[in-house]
Amino acid sequence: MDLQGDDLTEAVVASFDGSQNARTKTVMSALVRHLHAFAREVDLTEEEYFTAIGFLTRTGQISTGNRQEFVLLADVLGLSMLTVGLANRKPPEATASTVFGPFFVEGSPAIELGGDIANGAPGQPCLVSGKVLDTDGNPIPSALVETWQADEEGFYDVQKDVGQPQNRGHLTTDAEGNYSFWSVRPVAYPIPDDGPVGELLHAADRGVMRPAHIHFMVTAPGFARLITHIFAAGDNYLHNDAVFGVKDSLIADFTEHPAGTAPDGRELDQPFFTVQYDLVLAGTP
Amino acid sequence: MDLQGDDLTEAVVASFDGSQNARTKTVMSALVRHLHAFAREVDLTEEEYFTAIGFLTRTGQISTGNRQEFVLLADVLGLSMLTVGLANRKPPEATASTVFGPFFVEGSPAIELGGDIANGAPGQPCLVSGKVLDTDGNPIPSALVETWQADEEGFYDVQKDVGQPQNRGHLTTDAEGNYSFWSVRPVAYPIPDDGPVGELLHAADRGVMRPAHIHFMVTAPGFARLITHIFAAGDNYLHNDAVFGVKDSLIADFTEHPAGTAPDGRELDQPFFTVQYDLVLAGTP
Repeated sequence: MDLQGDDLTEAVVASFDGSQNARTKTVMSALVRHLHAFAREVDLTEEEYFTAIGFLTRTGQISTGNRQEFVLLADVLGLSMLTVGLANRKPPEATASTVFGPFFVEGSPAIELGGDIANGAPGQPCLVSGKVLDTDGNPIPSALVETWQADEEGFYDVQKDVGQPQNRGHLTTDAEGNYSFWSVRPVAYPIPDDGPVGELLHAADRGVMRPAHIHFMVTAPGFARLITHIFAAGDNYLHNDAVFGVKDSLIADFTEHPAGTAPDGRELDQPFFTVQYDLVLAGTP
Repeated sequence: MDLQGDDLTEAVVASFDGSQNARTKTVMSALVRHLHAFAREVDLTEEEYFTAIGFLTRTGQISTGNRQEFVLLADVLGLSMLTVGLANRKPPEATASTVFGPFFVEGSPAIELGGDIANGAPGQPCLVSGKVLDTDGNPIPSALVETWQADEEGFYDVQKDVGQPQNRGHLTTDAEGNYSFWSVRPVAYPIPDDGPVGELLHAADRGVMRPAHIHFMVTAPGFARLITHIFAAGDNYLHNDAVFGVKDSLIADFTEHPAGTAPDGRELDQPFFTVQYDLVLAGTP
């Protein structure tokens, strides 16, 4: 008894010795050692301990099916990108991975190839297209492409009271691996800063902006699932992403066109954008 | 861009450079470095990342005004006792501190000296008494003594649907520093294991029991607040406390007496217990 200092840490580590799963023991032992080392290094006060308890509690309680504040916290602490890097070592030919983010929603609408996911969301029309390929450049037919993004006001549908999905959907690639859909041109936007994560960022005088991007999650049998974004070239926040998610290889040109006929034959009475980006899947490890 | 490995960690650390409060910068820098070192050491997988996000979210969402699952988590990871140790370096004459626990409730009933906090809770009557003293042995009059504990079934009032406070209350010491109250004899009990923390303990095949104890929080102007327990000598779990909270100096004898007259003159028609323990406050740092 009277456990303190290193003896306390080792007693807590030892308490996980009986874990049925060896990985649980490994992870929890390391977690306890690093957590205790952190508290000792900063000489954590009881006030800070209770502040942290309250912060984490509010982070859980503000989370809903449509808002995941702990993902946002992991994002702004760089843990999400670190995990993405650890978990996605893959050949350089494969498309780089980036953060999942807090706004994915299960069960997005199915759309036809070339269909429109905007569903009334405000913004300038944008045709997004490319191929899903393997690392040898072969097309992957019937790959499942899920995509989601913010509108021109910087909001995802789940942040607004629209009552229906906007700017999200899923489709499957055709026999040549093609995907394409209409959406709106993405813009830079602030991450939700009305919760605990926002308090933290404001206390640190950190920026809350993310550069304009479109989310993708691509799955196909025999390939590693790809979670990534396409970022818009020229965005002001490419070098100052609140969640550290930008990779050079994920930046693509969003090209503006005058009103007229789009590459897929659609007639537009307003200017529109196109972006073309191939998504290259690594094989399963 | 393309932040990865150490560059990513240092970019996240640097993002806290602008903190208005120097302490925020210190704490967050250390937190980020240790969090990233942990993830790298265990080569955290994306599945584990999402498991952790879900675990933390549920830990926040199961917490209420009456149940604090994040305190319980910090308890079973030894972080609470580590913080107690860091924050309460004090002279050996002062009563040792231990964990606050998740069951304190603001606004407990005021009771007279010698009053009964049990308020109908099941258990064997127990007279708890002692003095609140400074480290020179001088009594501290008018000290605020807050106390709370489980009943003989191992439950705090807030874990049951009793609709009124049981086994909790506050009083002030008299001119000689005396405190005393009637309660029930505490018993060993399992911490709540129907939530995320219980899942973790069961996955690690860890015990969930706490040895019998009575909680105290004592405050008086000019003294450091004391948060502690009195533990019952002879308890089976003194060496296996789920939250690592036992200190030898906090163990006291709960003495059994036959039915009859108690030391305070009260007549009991059933056997009862007495425990005497002085609570010694350190000066403010």
